[in-house]
Amino acid sequence: MPDFTDALKPAYDGAATLAGERAGSNIDADALSKHLLSRDGFLERQNRICKVLEGEKLFDKSQQMNLSRPDRYHLGLARAKAIRRLVHKHSWDHEDAKMAEYLTDEMSPFHLHLTMFVTTIREQASDEQRAYWMPKIMDWSILGCYAQSELGHGSNVRGLETTATWDPEKKEFEIHSPTLTASKWWNGSMGRTATHAIVVAQILIPSPKSGSALKSHGPHPFIVQIRDTKTHLPLPGIVVGDIGPKYGYASMDNGYMLFDHFRVSKSAMLSRYATLDDSTGAFTKRGHPGLVYGSLTFVRANIIMNARLVLARAVTIAVRYSCVRRQFHDRDEKGAGPEMKVLDYPTVQIRILPLLATTFALHYTGEMMFELYGSTRESIERGDFSTIAELHSASSGLKSLCTTLAADGIETCRRAMGGHGFGGGSGLVGINADYLSKPTVEGDNWMITQQVAAYLIKKMTTAVEKPDSPPADSVDELFQMYIRQRDHRIPQNAIHGTNIDDKAIVEIFQWRAADLTYRAYRARVVDKKSWNSLLIQLHELSRAYSEQILTTTFHRAFASTSSSSLSAPTPSVLRTCFRLYTLYTLSNSPLPFLTSLAVSQPTLDALPDTILSLMSELRPHAVKLVDAWAIPGYLLDSALGRYDGRVYEDLYDRAHRKNDEMNKTVFNVDWRSEEVVKGSGDDGKRILSKL
Amino acid sequence: MPDFTDALKPAYDGAATLAGERAGSNIDADALSKHLLSRDGFLERQNRICKVLEGEKLFDKSQQMNLSRPDRYHLGLARAKAIRRLVHKHSWDHEDAKMAEYLTDEMSPFHLHLTMFVTTIREQASDEQRAYWMPKIMDWSILGCYAQSELGHGSNVRGLETTATWDPEKKEFEIHSPTLTASKWWNGSMGRTATHAIVVAQILIPSPKSGSALKSHGPHPFIVQIRDTKTHLPLPGIVVGDIGPKYGYASMDNGYMLFDHFRVSKSAMLSRYATLDDSTGAFTKRGHPGLVYGSLTFVRANIIMNARLVLARAVTIAVRYSCVRRQFHDRDEKGAGPEMKVLDYPTVQIRILPLLATTFALHYTGEMMFELYGSTRESIERGDFSTIAELHSASSGLKSLCTTLAADGIETCRRAMGGHGFGGGSGLVGINADYLSKPTVEGDNWMITQQVAAYLIKKMTTAVEKPDSPPADSVDELFQMYIRQRDHRIPQNAIHGTNIDDKAIVEIFQWRAADLTYRAYRARVVDKKSWNSLLIQLHELSRAYSEQILTTTFHRAFASTSSSSLSAPTPSVLRTCFRLYTLYTLSNSPLPFLTSLAVSQPTLDALPDTILSLMSELRPHAVKLVDAWAIPGYLLDSALGRYDGRVYEDLYDRAHRKNDEMNKTVFNVDWRSEEVVKGSGDDGKRILSKL
Repeated sequence: MPDFTDALKPAYDGAATLAGERAGSNIDADALSKHLLSRDGFLERQNRICKVLEGEKLFDKSQQMNLSRPDRYHLGLARAKAIRRLVHKHSWDHEDAKMAEYLTDEMSPFHLHLTMFVTTIREQASDEQRAYWMPKIMDWSILGCYAQSELGHGSNVRGLETTATWDPEKKEFEIHSPTLTASKWWNGSMGRTATHAIVVAQILIPSPKSGSALKSHGPHPFIVQIRDTKTHLPLPGIVVGDIGPKYGYASMDNGYMLFDHFRVSKSAMLSRYATLDDSTGAFTKRGHPGLVYGSLTFVRANIIMNARLVLARAVTIAVRYSCVRRQFHDRDEKGAGPEMKVLDYPTVQIRILPLLATTFALHYTGEMMFELYGSTRESIERGDFSTIAELHSASSGLKSLCTTLAADGIETCRRAMGGHGFGGGSGLVGINADYLSKPTVEGDNWMITQQVAAYLIKKMTTAVEKPDSPPADSVDELFQMYIRQRDHRIPQNAIHGTNIDDKAIVEIFQWRAADLTYRAYRARVVDKKSWNSLLIQLHELSRAYSEQILTTTFHRAFASTSSSSLSAPTPSVLRTCFRLYTLYTLSNSPLPFLTSLAVSQPTLDALPDTILSLMSELRPHAVKLVDAWAIPGYLLDSALGRYDGRVYEDLYDRAHRKNDEMNKTVFNVDWRSEEVVKGSGDDGKRILSKL
Repeated sequence: MPDFTDALKPAYDGAATLAGERAGSNIDADALSKHLLSRDGFLERQNRICKVLEGEKLFDKSQQMNLSRPDRYHLGLARAKAIRRLVHKHSWDHEDAKMAEYLTDEMSPFHLHLTMFVTTIREQASDEQRAYWMPKIMDWSILGCYAQSELGHGSNVRGLETTATWDPEKKEFEIHSPTLTASKWWNGSMGRTATHAIVVAQILIPSPKSGSALKSHGPHPFIVQIRDTKTHLPLPGIVVGDIGPKYGYASMDNGYMLFDHFRVSKSAMLSRYATLDDSTGAFTKRGHPGLVYGSLTFVRANIIMNARLVLARAVTIAVRYSCVRRQFHDRDEKGAGPEMKVLDYPTVQIRILPLLATTFALHYTGEMMFELYGSTRESIERGDFSTIAELHSASSGLKSLCTTLAADGIETCRRAMGGHGFGGGSGLVGINADYLSKPTVEGDNWMITQQVAAYLIKKMTTAVEKPDSPPADSVDELFQMYIRQRDHRIPQNAIHGTNIDDKAIVEIFQWRAADLTYRAYRARVVDKKSWNSLLIQLHELSRAYSEQILTTTFHRAFASTSSSSLSAPTPSVLRTCFRLYTLYTLSNSPLPFLTSLAVSQPTLDALPDTILSLMSELRPHAVKLVDAWAIPGYLLDSALGRYDGRVYEDLYDRAHRKNDEMNKTVFNVDWRSEEVVKGSGDDGKRILSKL
């Protein structure tokens, strides 16, 4: 309905503001996009799939924040099925389907079918099992999920309580939940969607030698049908459902499941790496134990690679809005003219610009992880398992650091945007709630740092005990150098007036990591301190080591891009990002740098002014740099982060034209009456019936 | 429906675990509760009101996370009206009604009527206006809100764009929205509920001298009817509605509103402190400008006082659950027996126990703020405005620090709880989303620190220029001492082996605050640096000054409680909390302590081990200490934080028995079909109709 507000315009023209920002920087954003996002045809795929989704009413996002949680699942399921139909219609490949889920920006109820379910069958099923199951999976006549975590145990897989007991007479397993905490829990796609599950259970086998007493062989995966494929009701002996509302993942049916002496045939046991001789009851495992790291490391490498895009979304919104938003005149000017763009305040810059720099740090480390993963897979196929431990360690430490940086970064950006950062038009409500799962899943960010520290302590022990043995990798080289130089270390200067020594920055991060490793080695190996008493120290070590990887990798990358096809000023702006990311990181936890003699006091003293001036260097390029991340408006779904700067027009549109369910209802606000909607006469019964 | 899971129990008995924790500490939790929560009869009131609400179906919280956002407003309105009826039925006073809203744990659509609306009429209306409006407010025949913030301006009140132009002929004001960004925005209770609003608009008055050109007299409050009291529809010339979904506050109708040359009579202008002569057009203001600080400071004092209870809720949940939750055996033990309680891991302790200590730090500072507010009000009534600036400064810095501590603390607790921290049973989903508004509202946490810094620089300037003038307050004393001693400062030791010097800790925090003030004074007053270039430094100064207040106030409090009625070991445990809060804070940003020569290097080096041992001291008392905060189970609404430790039973109950809307529906998961609910035959039309 037209009204007088149709003719109103905002006081400042956001479109002109962003156009002016873009005109003020010579960065070629398209070329930088291609540099960042060409792997596996990402950019082309993103554009192509986005166009299709934007044309489908079902993928319209404008009302979904108004839906109840059950309706979000209904919508999620409808969209998952629609994507599957689009795959069919447009002959999309697997990466296209993943892109559609990414752009839709919600976890599909089919997500686990396409990831852990099929991966586990591929990796853990025998040839015979694969031949039986893969066609059913690929033609979607069954729908799978992955049931490992339980109510009582997540990180500690060996502590799982679900049992699979071998019945030598009937040649069957009996899957059972002996306790409430044995209930499978959190497992995605299981609550309402899946027909089949990979169930991880403790294998118990009667030992003929010891009077049929049960012997445990540890947790093992089984493939189990859980629902009738016709009625979609749970099979007898199984209780399964959705666990209810949670932070994010509204579209996903995270589930719970218990078994009451539920019988499955022997063939349910996935047997590529294990066999059970059903005449003798002998259970044997095969294969290198490091192999189980494979898919976990791949999942973590993906999470690390994804962190840059998640953070880039938040930073894109924050940078664009902070240019359009103006508050106050300069206190020292008292002048008229327009108010200041808030991104010109150092207190806004210090929250957003180091995170903008961090997106690039995350990018080059993500690329490095993919390459390390690829080369390790190749080695493994040649039967060489020597680099698995390094890959596993790097992926653990980086998963912890990168997801923490991204999760905290989203919230930092949100708070930097003032009141509208709290609104639905921020585009951050959904991503924040969803992404907060990442520091916990696939290895809790505090827990898995132990694995990094254990690996580094082992390496340092070797470096101390065999200082002259040939180094196997760059970590050995670093530790041997540290051992040689530690008695005559001179703290390094990285800042000389207005000059910054990039190599010295890298060396400072490497030295601190080596020094913290040496201290951990002393405490654990020499002084024999208990592992638990060292946990905080080990966590800090993992972080320092991972920050060193980001620093080293970023430096290597921009050093090579400066001679690449990127035109000026992009290489030098990337160098500014490197300096800002590293010096800001240094300024946030200076003490271990100082006490390890990594960095000099004059360099520490120079940090605040240097960071201010790096932010000034970066500021004119901020909008172009976020443009280069090429996040589509459909994915951003943000009034504040619009590419065209029409922030206030969009905020108003969402409130005034897209909020009818609230705004077309007239309420009865008289406290004496129990009626809620005016004239409905229902005396609040409708809302009471929902409680 | 009964099933085999009814008989199952968790592997470890959470009830026995918490009972054992309570038996292991001699703290008298009830006595400590009384010590903490007796002000204004808080504890008695909490128990009394809680009982009433728990008996009303409408206040049942078990389904509300499943509701759509419009239904959350329906429910919020129904509850707000029900509370009003309960006030009537039980003769509740104003504090009782506020308690009911607090326990319901959602913002009532009547919230602004009871707070800013009535307060503004009381403080800004003339006697005649009061006499007219107060009876209508008190008998609820009108419902009010407070319309200050706009789409384009929040923090900068002088930048508001709504105008109120005086028409000398008709003796009326014309309220108008000249731009889109002039739209009132975010204002609570305005979107669907209120009939009247306090509208803050720029007063424009034609100046007879200069040919009737309009002269602005700055923003001023008007009382304006916005909806018809019978039909509840907006009056002609007004566009008003709800702004749509946002992070939290689902039950609140935050609104937008624009005016099209909307006419109000002269009497709409609140005129206790301003008058307009309608024959001459002369506009005059009266009263001390500091008076406007009054209600703002009161709001901030309340936010500061509330921060302890918000953080206590999160810590209560985290402490109880981390005792019940067990993961892994001790790595050095490899033994059988139960797995370790996760609160026994230092990596869990370091996230939760300093926050537990922080709840007490926040408590004593909250108490101090209330007393400072009370004494300042008394001074003002005696015509003495000398302490307003100190109150305003302390309340600004503490609002910023305390809400940051609480907001970040909720999320830290959540992440420390692993996967279930992400679930609806955590009890943290709602409080986290709602509380994230607090760092932004009532003065943005970065913005308002400028006010603290400006005040401190002024005080330091006086201390430098008149070092011998009699100190007006403790800040003057500190700064004069600093000036006298700064040339021969010796860094202080606070840790001597296992002995901790509490007075030295206080002195170290005070010295750092004085030193940062001195540096800011040098930069601004002596070196004449621009204000904006100093903003980050000034923000850090405000934080340091506020941390000094928490430290000083906490020290004073536990020093006096040690001689109070609290029995052993409570006073010494509170002292441990003081030490843990302060030394943990010190360890988080050690550099300014070091470079200001506040603290010695040996003390810094001793921090990690000292913090570990303080956490060990506190650990046995953790459950009793959170019990002392006496957060009712109804308010917590948390499976993880249950007083009785029946965590897993409750999580299962929520999933299996209270999630029927999801779990009683059978879905059609066949991608070829557009039908979502099996057998419904609606081909997805229902969900499409909601988009």
